Amino acid sequence: PANKKLLILPGDGIGPEVMRQVRRVIDWMDRKRRVTFDVQEGLVGGIAIDHHGVPLSDETMADAMGVDAVLLGAVGGPKWDNVSFDKRPEAGLLRLRKELGLFANLRPAIVFDALVDASTLKPDIVRGLDLMIVRELTGGVYFGEPRGIEELPDGQRRGVNTQVYTTSEIHRVARVAFELARKRQNKLCSVEKANVMESGLLWRQEVTKLHQAEYADVELTHMYADNCAMQLIKNPKQFDVIVTDNLFGDMLSDEAAMMTGSLGMLPSASLGAPDESGRRRALYEPVHGSAPDIAGRDLANPIATLLSFAMMLRYSFDMNEDADLIEKAVQTVLNGGTRTSDIMAPGMARCSTSVMGDSIVRVL
Amino acid sequence: PANKKLLILPGDGIGPEVMRQVRRVIDWMDRKRRVTFDVQEGLVGGIAIDHHGVPLSDETMADAMGVDAVLLGAVGGPKWDNVSFDKRPEAGLLRLRKELGLFANLRPAIVFDALVDASTLKPDIVRGLDLMIVRELTGGVYFGEPRGIEELPDGQRRGVNTQVYTTSEIHRVARVAFELARKRQNKLCSVEKANVMESGLLWRQEVTKLHQAEYADVELTHMYADNCAMQLIKNPKQFDVIVTDNLFGDMLSDEAAMMTGSLGMLPSASLGAPDESGRRRALYEPVHGSAPDIAGRDLANPIATLLSFAMMLRYSFDMNEDADLIEKAVQTVLNGGTRTSDIMAPGMARCSTSVMGDSIVRVL
Ligand SMILES: CC(C)[C@H](C(=O)O)[C@@H](O)C(=O)O
Ligand SMILES: CC(C)[C@H](C(=O)O)[C@@H](O)C(=O)O
Repeated sequence: PANKKLLILPGDGIGPEVMRQVRRVIDWMDRKRRVTFDVQEGLVGGIAIDHHGVPLSDETMADAMGVDAVLLGAVGGPKWDNVSFDKRPEAGLLRLRKELGLFANLRPAIVFDALVDASTLKPDIVRGLDLMIVRELTGGVYFGEPRGIEELPDGQRRGVNTQVYTTSEIHRVARVAFELARKRQNKLCSVEKANVMESGLLWRQEVTKLHQAEYADVELTHMYADNCAMQLIKNPKQFDVIVTDNLFGDMLSDEAAMMTGSLGMLPSASLGAPDESGRRRALYEPVHGSAPDIAGRDLANPIATLLSFAMMLRYSFDMNEDADLIEKAVQTVLNGGTRTSDIMAPGMARCSTSVMGDSIVRVL
Repeated sequence: PANKKLLILPGDGIGPEVMRQVRRVIDWMDRKRRVTFDVQEGLVGGIAIDHHGVPLSDETMADAMGVDAVLLGAVGGPKWDNVSFDKRPEAGLLRLRKELGLFANLRPAIVFDALVDASTLKPDIVRGLDLMIVRELTGGVYFGEPRGIEELPDGQRRGVNTQVYTTSEIHRVARVAFELARKRQNKLCSVEKANVMESGLLWRQEVTKLHQAEYADVELTHMYADNCAMQLIKNPKQFDVIVTDNLFGDMLSDEAAMMTGSLGMLPSASLGAPDESGRRRALYEPVHGSAPDIAGRDLANPIATLLSFAMMLRYSFDMNEDADLIEKAVQTVLNGGTRTSDIMAPGMARCSTSVMGDSIVRVL
C-alpha cells in the first residue's frame, strides 16, 4: 500500500521545538517498526506571515488536502498582534479547519496518575478524571455571517458576529459524540444556552431527536453552558462525554484542560466526515498554545504533541499497537520522575524538551 | 425625605424562602435602625407564568420602573421546561434587565476565610481571593437581532443569534469597571476573543481608547476568553477586576463563583446609567439559581440574598454603615460554626434556612 502521508506544520512559538521530538519518534517507527511516513513540512501562522504574507498559503492548503493527516504545533504570538484581522496567525488555523471540513474537535481531559498533584484542584476531585469534550469546530459564532465592524452615521462603530447552526451541522457532530460515548461510559451531556439563545434551543431539540432515533441506548443529559462551567469545577468526574458548540467548547475544553494540571500533556484531534472508504480528514494538535514566553529555550513539554501523534496513529491509521507503545513510554518516563518545568514537582528531576524526548525514545 | 422604595421579587424555587430572611432584616432595620422601606412584592419567572401566563406582567414591570431598587430571588425550574421560548421564566428576568437598562452586572467572587476548605481548589490557590467580574448585561448575543429558528427549503432548520456591540455599549460598561478598579487594586483585565470575532476586536480597541483617554492611571490588560477560563483555575488571585461581554461574563462569573466554594454566599448587583441626580436603577440578586431540588425544604443558604440586600444598601442608598453591620453579622455567624448544608464542614453545626436567618438577626 502507499505510504502514509503526513503534513507537519510546526507553526510558531514552541511549535517547532516540540515537533522536533515527534520527528524522532517518526524515525524510530521507520527503523524499529518498519512503518514509513511520507512527511511533508509546511508553514502556518506567524511564520507563514513572515515568509509569504499570509498565515496559510494556497500551496500549503493544497498540501493539507492531499495528505492523510496533518500534525500542527501552535500558532500566534505577540509579534503578530497588530497584523490585520483577516491575516492574523489564527486565520491560518481557522482556514485549515474550515477547508478540511474538520467539524468535530475531540479534546480529552485526562489526569495522569503521576501528575495528580499538579492540578490546582484537590486530588480527590480530579484523581482518575477522564472526560472527553467534543467541540463543534467549523460553525457557530467563529464562522457565521454577517460579521465585521461597521461605522455608524453618528461616528460610533458596531461589531457583529453571527451564531448560526443548522440541523445537519448539529447532527454530524452529535453523532461523533454519541459514537464515542458508546465506546466509553455510554454517557453524553449536551451543552448550550437553550434558555436564552434560539440556536441553543435548536441544538437541544436536534440532539434530542437524534438520540431518540438512533442512540436511545446512550444516557443523554442536557446542561446550560454556565452551569457546565460550574459543574466542571464542582465535580468533573460526573461527566463522560460532553458535546457542545464552537464557542462554548473553546471555553469549556480549556477550563477542563487546565483543571487536569496536565495542560502540557493534552492532545486533540479534529475530524472531518468519513469518505466512501470510511477515512476522515484529520488534524492533530496539542491543546496548549504557542507559549511565546518560553519559546526557543528548550523548556516546553513535548508530551502533548507526542500524544497528538499517538492519537493520529489511532484515529487516522488504526495503528493502536504503536499508539499504545508511545502512550506507555510516556507513562514510564513520568513514573520514573522525569519532568519538564510545567509539570515539575518536589523530588523529581527537571528536564528540557529534548531530554524529555530522549527519555521517551530511549524507553521506546 | 421620601421612604426608600423597594420591589421584592422572590421568584421560583428557593427564592421565596431565602427572601423571607431578608424580610426579617428589613424589620430589624425598621425597629432598630429607624430606616423604613416602602416594600412592594411581585411575581417573576415560573410563578408569574402560573398566575398571569407571562413571566413578568406589565404591572410588575411598571412597579420595577417606579422603585429605587429591585431585589430578586431566582427564576426557573423543570416545571416550566416546556413553556414556549418567549414565555419561559428566564424571559422575565431578561425583560427586567433590558427595560431597566441594567447594563453592568457586578459579580464579586470572594472566598470567605471561614469557608476556604469548601472550595474544590487547593486552599493556597483561593485563600483571600477577592475578584470582581463586571459582565455586560443588556447586549451581545443574548439580545442581538436577527434571532430565531427558521425552516429551510430542504426541510432542515437553522438557529440564529447575533452577537453585536456598539462603541457606546462598550464604553459605558468599561467605565463602570475602570471606576471600580480605581477603588480596588487599580487593575483591570478586559476579556474577549479578538482573535476570532470582530465584535471582540472592537471591544478590545474601544476599551484601549477609553483607557488612554480617561483611565491611563489604571493598569489595563487584555486576555482571550478561553485563556481567562484557564487562568482563573491556574491562579485566580492574578485578577482584580475583569470586564467582559454578556456571554463570556455569564460563563466566567459562574466559573469564578463555584471556585470560591461559596456559591450560596455570593451576591450580585446589576446597575443602569446614572440619572441627573446620580442615581442608578438597580437590581440585586444572589448568584445561585432557583435550586428546584431543595426548594421548599428550609435547606437553602439565605446568605447570598442577605448580602445582595447589603450590596443594595451600599450601591443604591449609600448606607455603608448598615451594610457593614449585616456583612459583619454574617461573618460572626460563620466564624461561630453555624452552616447551612451547602457550606457544611466537619465539626460545624448544620442549620436550616430559617435558623441561619435567626442567627444573623440575633447577632444584629
Ligand atoms: C487559536 C484560536 C483560533 C483557537 C480557537 O479559538 O478556536 C484556539 O483557542 C483553540 O481553542 O484551538
Ligand atoms: C437565568 C439566565 C437567563 C441568566 C443568564 O444567562 O444571564 C443566568 O444564567 C445568569 O447568569 O444570571
